[in-house]
Amino acid sequence: MTIMSSQFRPVLDHIMAEIDRTPGRGRSADYIPALAARDPRRFGMAVAEPDGTVYGVGEWRQPFSTQSITKVFTLALDLAREGDELWEHVGREPSGNPFNSLVQLEYESGIPRNPFINAGALVVTDRLQTRTGDAAGELLAFLRAESGNDALDFDLEVAASETANGDRNAALAHFMASYGNIDNDVPVLLDQYFRQCSVAASCADLALATGFLARHGIRADGSRLLSRSQAKQVNAVMLTCGTYDAAGDFAYRVGLPGKSGVGGGIIAVVPGRCTLCVWSPGLDERGNSVAGVAALDRFTTLTGLSVF
Amino acid sequence: MTIMSSQFRPVLDHIMAEIDRTPGRGRSADYIPALAARDPRRFGMAVAEPDGTVYGVGEWRQPFSTQSITKVFTLALDLAREGDELWEHVGREPSGNPFNSLVQLEYESGIPRNPFINAGALVVTDRLQTRTGDAAGELLAFLRAESGNDALDFDLEVAASETANGDRNAALAHFMASYGNIDNDVPVLLDQYFRQCSVAASCADLALATGFLARHGIRADGSRLLSRSQAKQVNAVMLTCGTYDAAGDFAYRVGLPGKSGVGGGIIAVVPGRCTLCVWSPGLDERGNSVAGVAALDRFTTLTGLSVF
Amino acid sequence: MTIMSSQFRPVLDHIMAEIDRTPGRGRSADYIPALAARDPRRFGMAVAEPDGTVYGVGEWRQPFSTQSITKVFTLALDLAREGDELWEHVGREPSGNPFNSLVQLEYESGIPRNPFINAGALVVTDRLQTRTGDAAGELLAFLRAESGNDALDFDLEVAASETANGDRNAALAHFMASYGNIDNDVPVLLDQYFRQCSVAASCADLALATGFLARHGIRADGSRLLSRSQAKQVNAVMLTCGTYDAAGDFAYRVGLPGKSGVGGGIIAVVPGRCTLCVWSPGLDERGNSVAGVAALDRFTTLTGLSVF
Amino acid sequence: MTIMSSQFRPVLDHIMAEIDRTPGRGRSADYIPALAARDPRRFGMAVAEPDGTVYGVGEWRQPFSTQSITKVFTLALDLAREGDELWEHVGREPSGNPFNSLVQLEYESGIPRNPFINAGALVVTDRLQTRTGDAAGELLAFLRAESGNDALDFDLEVAASETANGDRNAALAHFMASYGNIDNDVPVLLDQYFRQCSVAASCADLALATGFLARHGIRADGSRLLSRSQAKQVNAVMLTCGTYDAAGDFAYRVGLPGKSGVGGGIIAVVPGRCTLCVWSPGLDERGNSVAGVAALDRFTTLTGLSVF
Repeated sequence: MTIMSSQFRPVLDHIMAEIDRTPGRGRSADYIPALAARDPRRFGMAVAEPDGTVYGVGEWRQPFSTQSITKVFTLALDLAREGDELWEHVGREPSGNPFNSLVQLEYESGIPRNPFINAGALVVTDRLQTRTGDAAGELLAFLRAESGNDALDFDLEVAASETANGDRNAALAHFMASYGNIDNDVPVLLDQYFRQCSVAASCADLALATGFLARHGIRADGSRLLSRSQAKQVNAVMLTCGTYDAAGDFAYRVGLPGKSGVGGGIIAVVPGRCTLCVWSPGLDERGNSVAGVAALDRFTTLTGLSVF
Repeated sequence: MTIMSSQFRPVLDHIMAEIDRTPGRGRSADYIPALAARDPRRFGMAVAEPDGTVYGVGEWRQPFSTQSITKVFTLALDLAREGDELWEHVGREPSGNPFNSLVQLEYESGIPRNPFINAGALVVTDRLQTRTGDAAGELLAFLRAESGNDALDFDLEVAASETANGDRNAALAHFMASYGNIDNDVPVLLDQYFRQCSVAASCADLALATGFLARHGIRADGSRLLSRSQAKQVNAVMLTCGTYDAAGDFAYRVGLPGKSGVGGGIIAVVPGRCTLCVWSPGLDERGNSVAGVAALDRFTTLTGLSVF
Repeated sequence: MTIMSSQFRPVLDHIMAEIDRTPGRGRSADYIPALAARDPRRFGMAVAEPDGTVYGVGEWRQPFSTQSITKVFTLALDLAREGDELWEHVGREPSGNPFNSLVQLEYESGIPRNPFINAGALVVTDRLQTRTGDAAGELLAFLRAESGNDALDFDLEVAASETANGDRNAALAHFMASYGNIDNDVPVLLDQYFRQCSVAASCADLALATGFLARHGIRADGSRLLSRSQAKQVNAVMLTCGTYDAAGDFAYRVGLPGKSGVGGGIIAVVPGRCTLCVWSPGLDERGNSVAGVAALDRFTTLTGLSVF
Repeated sequence: MTIMSSQFRPVLDHIMAEIDRTPGRGRSADYIPALAARDPRRFGMAVAEPDGTVYGVGEWRQPFSTQSITKVFTLALDLAREGDELWEHVGREPSGNPFNSLVQLEYESGIPRNPFINAGALVVTDRLQTRTGDAAGELLAFLRAESGNDALDFDLEVAASETANGDRNAALAHFMASYGNIDNDVPVLLDQYFRQCSVAASCADLALATGFLARHGIRADGSRLLSRSQAKQVNAVMLTCGTYDAAGDFAYRVGLPGKSGVGGGIIAVVPGRCTLCVWSPGLDERGNSVAGVAALDRFTTLTGLSVF
């Protein structure tokens, strides 16, 4: 990690000052005890440039629970391996429904709408598991390599807490299995899935790990993970499906490909220019970080770096 | 209209040659007789630059039925007048359902998901009608001014054909009226709505008329229609909701804000750079022009001008 | 009307006394002004025997707005004319959804689930209109003849009020028309439909008019309206679909074929034995008369006359 | 079992002769191998009178897989124990959807619509399991006692086959558990549930075991299982919800409380008079025995014993 005075330093400092003055911040996720304890007013933000330069404000080096943000990396890792065949098992359309809806699945015969709703991420994890034998391990290795942070790890307490509250995801997995769209045993799959979600990482780690999407598919070490076309495609899926049932609103306000997690983190990509990660545990009613969305909104307004 | 040798001329010529060699082209819309007669192999494409330069290939000056493409202009005209209040009456999230679904409306108490599904466009038209007394007339005047083509007009045969087959839209309008989300009498509203959809225009006309979205809200005559922020927002809504239930796929393949119509036309925006319009009447099963999407896909691949 | 001391007199007197002591009574319907004014504590009940004997308690001779109760008679009148062909245009399964849902219609291509949801009653009225040219007139003539009360009539104020608030039904009619399941012009159909619902009649009138369902299809004058098998079928549809989304609960508590209306009336049939009508304007949240269901529940408990 | 010349003997002989002449018979269930092998033309029918007299035709003493028929007995056994509290955990309204739909559950926060859809039967089994520690054992003991047939048993091959194909039911159970409406561990519950469904019994066995519903709650040994009111209620739930998505049609054609299973069996009750069981493995598209429904239809037509 090269920490230096990025061109974006004044912008981030400005945003930090604004956020500090903002009162309401939503509520932290409470469906598992391990997440409920977080103070919704905590805040951090980092920006990474394609050359590995990274700069941040607030608690930008504080690890938090990545949760659904890892769905982006799992998607990229599986897409790199199997290519377009993946799209026969998961769609790439916005869901138009809350993120764990079963209705859509029933309409569409067990094919989830996109890789970023839980059902879709279960399918992607299942396929990566079949191809690697250790989907969560692959993910962790990738995150460590891209961030240069070997201390990154699963948070087994969070994973255990998810498992204990995992009936909804178990229902999704069994339901898709009934349509033949899950290969691995459901308990094995859920274990892989919950461990992925449990990875603890900081804004700095995640901004760096997302870098391949700003570099059109090139990893930190210069090797290619995705083709230029695939990298564009992952960005497109993030823009249309990355923030649960608020993708339209996120595109409208922020105008960048992004992916949020209920831990309060959001990653975003300015193709060719930089990647961002923001964290604040207070969520809105659709599961996205209130201060996180506000900070990204300010970023694109101040820099003009929206894709639109 | 300034016709000159645009920088995009070689790209368009290349695409035209490819499209000529492509066999299958889908089927033209057949829900109204006035559209059914079109040969699915016809094709035209135009690109307009912010300064008004326009270039095209194939039947790029042939008028066709704009249909849902006009929803973009009606949205912009109403947004310019009432601003954010509009968003209390229509959402900006992808629908996740076929374009004329009633289910979503029932879930969400008469508030359509976005301005580009039929229900949402009816609401926007209703609001523009309340503010102007002649929504369709406003639209026509705008299209004429931006394209510089005073011959643009409604196709009253198409409008009559829509009216005669208008039970589904009548159902949508009455249904939203039952929730208090329609102000005008339903027959008046439908007349305005169907006339808007009936406008006949060419690829050249529409590429020029879309120019304000590439110029960040500035009209052809230099006056401002939308704020920079509003122009960005309209582009965002086009990207996430502009191609019926295929918005994710369009973003994935083309990577530009776009809006299609069942007449076979598609407009697209490269913010700050240019606008495009392509026409070919053969549709895929989701209502988008087969050759049109293919041509735009090639355009962004060849030029690298996707927003991702 | 032969008023005499029916065998059921002691039972009705007992029920009347119990109802008088009951506090809560729900709320009268308020979706149209003409219904909203009713005192929810008013109550009347009548029982009619197959020979035309009728006895009542409370306001059993007070006319009230029949509303959906007339759907039973319209069904019988159309079934008598066209027989089983009707069932190709409307189902006979419980709806499992609130009474004016559009979702079901969309799932099932414009064929409503049963004749007692609004969509189904619109189809039946449409078909009777096609066969008679005056569906509402046919209904009124039938009710007058069976009750022996020539003073029965439409309440045009109620009909006008329904029309002014008729967007939901207009949406249903247009929606089914879009599937080809409505023959008449929608405004003509709605006029016929709302006039039918507006008929004012008393418990005595309706208990007598329902008599043909206790007499296995035979009208008051001894002529046959329905075959024995058809009469049984109408009773079956009443039992499974007659009380909106509470058919299961009504069968569970009362155990008789019945049909309710939002005017607060309910008719019920003890096949071969008698017919009942009860009225009290206070409704529960599913649109059924609170005191009406309670009175019928007591009736079958006290007499053992449930079909189960 | 007292086999003697019942009053219904001529009727059953007549029906048997008719069925023998009927050509098409549907298809046997094929979702598990153990059921798929059955010849759809096999047929048996038995009638039991309240005093224990039983008579049958065809293969009326041939054991078959009871499947969903046992849901009636499990419901009665749990209702006898916990009474009306059960209805806070499962509804009693028709589902209006195919029998294993998840959509309804999602709408209604994990409370299944009635005890005869799979989700509802899982809840009832879960509650009986909590109260007895061995729901399947309770069921088997009850069936043996009422039929007088100690040879009745689980078919463990069928149960294993269901388990191997049990993803849909596992999804339902986990989904309801996510709403707090399942107490036991899902694998334990599924084991109990699938063993219940696997019981092999004959028409004679099941007609006798259903006797308590014709005797208003009294068991074969004269002891009371259900109150008179509860027995009426179970009959009501059977009539409105007993035959999957065809309850309305079954009421319309047969007019009796009934419950079908995908093994091809159907039980039916003529309250106060007799109980029936018919078996023929060929199913219609809604999962009910084709010849079974036809035979019951003929029975009520010939005897006039419909409840309507």
